[in-house]
Amino acid sequence: MSKQHKTLYWEDFEVGRTVLLGEKTVTRAEIVAFAAEFDPQPFHLDEAAAANTMLGGLAASGWHSCAIMMRLMCDGYLTNSSSLGSPGLDEVKWLKPVRPGDTLKAQYTCKEARASGSRPGIGICELHYELFNQHGDLVMIWECTQFFGQREAEAAS
Amino acid sequence: MSKQHKTLYWEDFEVGRTVLLGEKTVTRAEIVAFAAEFDPQPFHLDEAAAANTMLGGLAASGWHSCAIMMRLMCDGYLTNSSSLGSPGLDEVKWLKPVRPGDTLKAQYTCKEARASGSRPGIGICELHYELFNQHGDLVMIWECTQFFGQREAEAAS
Repeated sequence: MSKQHKTLYWEDFEVGRTVLLGEKTVTRAEIVAFAAEFDPQPFHLDEAAAANTMLGGLAASGWHSCAIMMRLMCDGYLTNSSSLGSPGLDEVKWLKPVRPGDTLKAQYTCKEARASGSRPGIGICELHYELFNQHGDLVMIWECTQFFGQREAEAAS
Repeated sequence: MSKQHKTLYWEDFEVGRTVLLGEKTVTRAEIVAFAAEFDPQPFHLDEAAAANTMLGGLAASGWHSCAIMMRLMCDGYLTNSSSLGSPGLDEVKWLKPVRPGDTLKAQYTCKEARASGSRPGIGICELHYELFNQHGDLVMIWECTQFFGQREAEAAS
């Protein structure tokens, strides 16, 4: 067999099940580097400038939190799955600041899994993602639509 | 006056007006560097691996497109505004692949602007963002909620 064995196909998503995705500690240097390139607002770059803002201190760009969650997804299951990408998200919510030294843990819960009506061999999942810090605070949620190949379709190809 | 003059306050958002935010050409090196750190799926890293996928060739991570739009926002108005951050987005849609060499142009349209009912001096805007490539294709949209300070509140403080 020349095909690489994948761990996860569309058939493996079970509605209601929650799956842990590992963790990542984010450093001050990473926060500042991401912000300098993509989100150079003062409260993502400098403690003194951040102190009197609504964030109450240096905090990561919300897009940095998104990028970290994406990496946790990739390492947790996505790069060893039949993933066919995503058309986007119905919701991204930033609920708490992410601080230097925070250890972020991700998980997802499958809310819905249906076969594509128009594209044979493809399944669609609605996945609810949550990102927590080391205190157990929920810092971000996503509602994400994702496409996956069906095991049966790959076996037949 | 010790206060820095800002260009844009909540009162300056006019419902229905579309504002251009500048452009950014994204290189292959940037696409691969972002993906290697945050989204290491083969179709974001390598032309050969990407050729036979649903993207039909190397394309940027959707989160890279988000990060680029954020930077265009910052440079276009946000870092010279009374911005107080964002609680999140009601929608992120990736509509077309972003390719090496693409020149991306952003704009936003204000859909709604209301004063906060609970927090004096703060205004809330619902902003519709669009990212286009050099062919005029719409590659991404956002529906984003953002908080801004009111000019009147700052003048009184």
